[in-house]
This record gives sequence, C-alpha cells and structure tokens, in this order.
Amino acid sequence: MSAITKDINAHAQAVIKTAQDQNVMIALAESCTGGMVAASLTDIAGSSAVFDRGFVTYSNDAKMDMLGVTGETLKAHGAVSSETAIEMVTGVLKQAPKSMIAISITGIAGPGGGSTDKPVGLVYFGIQTRDKPAQSVKQIFEGDRANIRNKASFFALDLIIKKLK
Amino acid sequence: MSAITKDINAHAQAVIKTAQDQNVMIALAESCTGGMVAASLTDIAGSSAVFDRGFVTYSNDAKMDMLGVTGETLKAHGAVSSETAIEMVTGVLKQAPKSMIAISITGIAGPGGGSTDKPVGLVYFGIQTRDKPAQSVKQIFEGDRANIRNKASFFALDLIIKKLK
Repeated sequence: MSAITKDINAHAQAVIKTAQDQNVMIALAESCTGGMVAASLTDIAGSSAVFDRGFVTYSNDAKMDMLGVTGETLKAHGAVSSETAIEMVTGVLKQAPKSMIAISITGIAGPGGGSTDKPVGLVYFGIQTRDKPAQSVKQIFEGDRANIRNKASFFALDLIIKKLK
Repeated sequence: MSAITKDINAHAQAVIKTAQDQNVMIALAESCTGGMVAASLTDIAGSSAVFDRGFVTYSNDAKMDMLGVTGETLKAHGAVSSETAIEMVTGVLKQAPKSMIAISITGIAGPGGGSTDKPVGLVYFGIQTRDKPAQSVKQIFEGDRANIRNKASFFALDLIIKKLK
C-alpha cells in the first residue's frame, strides 16, 4: 500500500520550511496521487501557515467542475496529458487566490488503465507560480500502484522545492 | 508521522467494496486529516468507480470558497465545531452532484491550537447521504499529531461503512 515514507516526510518538511521562509502559500490539484501530497504536507505541524487548499480531482467531471479543465482538452488529449496537467494547475491557482504556487498531478497508477501510448506509470505534473506561465513535466515511474503513487508524490514535492529555491 | 496503516488500508478496502456493491459515489471534505482519507481510498485499485472528488479545505478561506461554509458560522462556532462540520458536508454534496454520500472532518491535530474548551484531539465529523439531513459526530482522540490524524481517518472510513450498510 501507499504510505507517507520517510523520504516523502523529509521532503514535505523541506517544502514547508522553504515556503515558510519565503512566506508563500501552496495549493494542489491531485488526480493519481489522490490526496497523498496534501496529506504529506499537512502531516507537518505548522503547515497551515503555508498550505491553503487541495483539490482531489479523481474523475474527469471533478477536473472540469472543480478546476475548469475543458471537455475539449479531455477529449482531445485525455486526462493523463500535458494539456490536462496545465489546465489543472492553472485552474487551481485561479481557485486559490492567496496561493503563489500550485502543482497538479495526473497519471496512470495502475494496475489497469494503461495502453501502448500511455503506459502504467506515466504521470504528468503541472507547475505554476503566479507571475509565470504554467509548465508541465512528464515522467514514467516503474513499479506497482503503491510505488508509482509514492514516486509521483515525492516528485511533486521535489518540483515545489526546486521552484521555490 | 501519519501513515496509511494496515488498519486504515483494510477499512478503505471495505469502504470501496461496500460502495461498489451499492453503486454509490463518495465525496470528501477534509481539514485536519488534510487528504489522508482521500489518499487511503485512492490507494485501492478500482476506487475511481466509487470515489469522485475530495476537497482539502485546510484554511477558513478554503472552507468558505470551496464548500460555502459561512463566515458567520466560522466566527460564531469556530472551524472546529459541529456547525462547521455540517456546513462542510452539505457543501461538498452540493459540489459533487454524482456523489450519494459525503463525509467532512474538521479538528485540532496539534500540537498547537488547543484550548480548554477545544482541546487537541477534538474532531467533528459531518456525514450526509443525499436523501437525508446532515448529522455530526464529535470525538476526542488521544495521542500526538500523527495518532490523532490516523484515528480520525480510521473513524471517518468507519462512519462511511456504517452509513452504507
């Protein structure tokens, strides 16, 4: 099963410390990690000073309703795509007016749902700070469902740290 | 640190199975558990059939913006109160049109934030099915921040199982 490992916990602590030092709020939109990144941040005492809100948008409807991802994008590119990751992160920043940085995560954790084009382990991350356009990062993680979710959570925290530094 | 323990994992599996058997979708609003309950459900392969969306409303602003909790309720009763738990769960059902059941969780995980009236470990849960009024449940959990978050997550899953059966 997925868990908040020591690695993830240490990285979440680093995110909270960096955000506190820089006085920035963080917002999240999670699909395949399903709340793990939010859980890892809120695990840290004092996280309420820098973590504002998170959207767990597990279904396509949730991505549209909660973040404003368009049906056209989902139809043309799929939920697991650079385009969807970008619309998710842009949406969460709009929905979180006090947050200066947002991350989105959308991928295929498995064991089902993979294809030749989009294998299990494929994850797209969107990242955006309020003053710059959104960017996306593509990764393919090895392992089972729990491994993929853990690795994606760690990677998301890592992206925040690198962006804030 | 908080973690998806074996107990929580087993309970999340039971929630997913019961919801699949009854063909109902679940939605969540989490404050002190900060995404742990969503993470525990999405840990289970096949959860996408029954888990639609989750709102991690860590700040008061998030509770108002994302769930429609009123400033009056927060001012009169505080974020950790039966009234706020009820407004959170009613809000999440409104924001999740396909979900038949919703749970909200708001509490004081500590180590700070406690008072004589509202000690660390105090957690209110809201639960609502679409055909009935919302109810709230008050609990006081012993232990440190991680213990309290784990116990609150387990209790929330337990509430869903009992409500669905």
